[in-house]
Amino acid sequence: MSPTPQRSCLQDYPYALTITTRWHDNDVYGHVNNVQYYAFFDTAVNRYLIERKVLDIHCGAVIGLVVETSCRYFAPIAFPDLVVAAVRVDHLGNSSVRYAIGLFRAAERSTGAGAAERSTEGAAERSTKGGAAAKSAPALELQAMQPTQSLDPATEAVAEGHFVHVYVDRHTRRPTPLPGALRKALLELRAQSPEPGKSCL
Amino acid sequence: MSPTPQRSCLQDYPYALTITTRWHDNDVYGHVNNVQYYAFFDTAVNRYLIERKVLDIHCGAVIGLVVETSCRYFAPIAFPDLVVAAVRVDHLGNSSVRYAIGLFRAAERSTGAGAAERSTEGAAERSTKGGAAAKSAPALELQAMQPTQSLDPATEAVAEGHFVHVYVDRHTRRPTPLPGALRKALLELRAQSPEPGKSCL
Amino acid sequence: MSPTPQRSCLQDYPYALTITTRWHDNDVYGHVNNVQYYAFFDTAVNRYLIERKVLDIHCGAVIGLVVETSCRYFAPIAFPDLVVAAVRVDHLGNSSVRYAIGLFRAAERSTGAGAAERSTEGAAERSTKGGAAAKSAPALELQAMQPTQSLDPATEAVAEGHFVHVYVDRHTRRPTPLPGALRKALLELRAQSPEPGKSCL
Amino acid sequence: MSPTPQRSCLQDYPYALTITTRWHDNDVYGHVNNVQYYAFFDTAVNRYLIERKVLDIHCGAVIGLVVETSCRYFAPIAFPDLVVAAVRVDHLGNSSVRYAIGLFRAAERSTGAGAAERSTEGAAERSTKGGAAAKSAPALELQAMQPTQSLDPATEAVAEGHFVHVYVDRHTRRPTPLPGALRKALLELRAQSPEPGKSCL
Repeated sequence: MSPTPQRSCLQDYPYALTITTRWHDNDVYGHVNNVQYYAFFDTAVNRYLIERKVLDIHCGAVIGLVVETSCRYFAPIAFPDLVVAAVRVDHLGNSSVRYAIGLFRAAERSTGAGAAERSTEGAAERSTKGGAAAKSAPALELQAMQPTQSLDPATEAVAEGHFVHVYVDRHTRRPTPLPGALRKALLELRAQSPEPGKSCL
Repeated sequence: MSPTPQRSCLQDYPYALTITTRWHDNDVYGHVNNVQYYAFFDTAVNRYLIERKVLDIHCGAVIGLVVETSCRYFAPIAFPDLVVAAVRVDHLGNSSVRYAIGLFRAAERSTGAGAAERSTEGAAERSTKGGAAAKSAPALELQAMQPTQSLDPATEAVAEGHFVHVYVDRHTRRPTPLPGALRKALLELRAQSPEPGKSCL
Repeated sequence: MSPTPQRSCLQDYPYALTITTRWHDNDVYGHVNNVQYYAFFDTAVNRYLIERKVLDIHCGAVIGLVVETSCRYFAPIAFPDLVVAAVRVDHLGNSSVRYAIGLFRAAERSTGAGAAERSTEGAAERSTKGGAAAKSAPALELQAMQPTQSLDPATEAVAEGHFVHVYVDRHTRRPTPLPGALRKALLELRAQSPEPGKSCL
Repeated sequence: MSPTPQRSCLQDYPYALTITTRWHDNDVYGHVNNVQYYAFFDTAVNRYLIERKVLDIHCGAVIGLVVETSCRYFAPIAFPDLVVAAVRVDHLGNSSVRYAIGLFRAAERSTGAGAAERSTEGAAERSTKGGAAAKSAPALELQAMQPTQSLDPATEAVAEGHFVHVYVDRHTRRPTPLPGALRKALLELRAQSPEPGKSCL
């Protein structure tokens, strides 16, 4: 409803994760359903925490409860696009953290005309090689999975949102201060956020 | 229930697609829920058809109805693993096609100890560079997305299944012969399947 | 992050839909994942429109694009709870509508001790009747599906959010005035909203 | 691919659970996506076990791993249909159980012409009552949630499948005999299955 929302761009976020879309992310209108955007948010935030080894899903004494989320949708995404989910920390409290998340669309190269021809050539070539074909084919397809290497840092988000975690004791479910290692990882993420004037906002 | 099911391996399939897992693919037991495996099947098959430009979701005169699917589960997968969904054609009829699909687990490099340290170094380095950090960070993460380049062709499937499409007229929903371009793409996929004796089966 | 958010209650909404939870709505922490809440929002809004026959998914000249959503989470829900998704219209513009949605938890009766015993008795009784058993069993289970008949109108929401649709021309995707029948259905929904002083807010 | 598969009917199953469909169960073709059928299977089986108090998700010493599933699709389902997921036990081993599941379509009454008119009347009536309207509206909608009371026991399945659980020790993940209470609940389910000649098969 906001008349002209300011859209963030890729360089506004220090962390980014590429996520493959799935056939049934699309709904009856042929685009990724609004609900799935939150699955991308959830995945990017938790993936960062797991990667930094500060989230122990099974045994951690504290767990992060999601208390608030939101999303604004600017432009559609559709399978088989790749999505880049980018994360920054907007606020770090005693027991809570507020993330800002931007989603970026990276159309797959392999759906372009050139890729399809390349693929056909590859198929012809491989079919003469017999068993060797199977070995090379998967590697070939994998080359389609590197979208942000060519995404311009000034690329505008197709959607933006926020995500608030409050950390609680696993058993009492009462708010608890962020554990030290987690706080350190979040402080680093915040420190990596672009300086004012270097961002698109 | 089968006592010792024979498991296929990556080289038994001519086409493979890497799919990123999501936080909520895991269920309460901490592994990817059995239902999601079929989302990987669905995505890999349709992605191949879109890539070969033989599936026109919105305007095609014929559509593929799924009439039968199955899956056997050999070993767990869990977020944040990558999944490689590999496809071959087992039978091609007049109006139907039966795919065999194998799922392979590619643990993410970045969750290993080395990767985490590298990531920490990168963060420290980037935080001294200010705005430039944001530009390089996403590209860094993307390096985690190339699993099958290092997957051994003899890697065994963690799950296997089949998937049968019957093509019908979009309006009458009656079976119809496979359109020529689609049949050609499926014949190529079948032709690329490994010769007997070169596969794991 | 809001210190003490005011929670709405069931009587603040004129329309309510009961939704059954599913096994895999629960995530690794054993509660319905935050993303699924938006699936309940989406379902309740679209269900109202379909029920009022003002949404023609396949052939309508206009379609509703979701441009903004949000949710605040107050208390957990978990499979096999039933969810009541309640809807009101907060703002009706020329080409857009803003819904407020409240989610309410209705624990299933059949998971209580009494129900389980009743079920066991039923089983014993039925097993002596042979084939007739199969006929009556499904009907028995269905009795568990009537939660809000006993939900107090003062029940507080476990989550609350909003959902904004902008209507666009199906082909040009440019905003378009709400069609007359749709506007009428939304005006009625707004008219049924409780008077100030009769609500919990 | 089977030329004329024999379809089971509702009376072939002793347990049935009604599940509400959701907006995004439908895929781009406007019907419930093939993957979701397995979510209905998973939900019905686990719901039976929870209801019988023989599944302790969080603390049980054993857990059921899904090792094999399949589904044949006979006819489409689409949101906002209700689905009835019906379960019987086909085989009970020492540490495993094989369920057969049938899905049945129960079109919602409220989408019929009569229901829509009734709903409009109700709205008009309620709008004259002010605050009281909100109280009665939810109960009204709930009446749409009782499909199988009017489903004929001879109704044919729109889909059928199977689902095999192997029980393992939660920690070692090695197969373990079914706990006594679980075995009892499964034996009862099997005992309630219709006698030969009374079923549709």
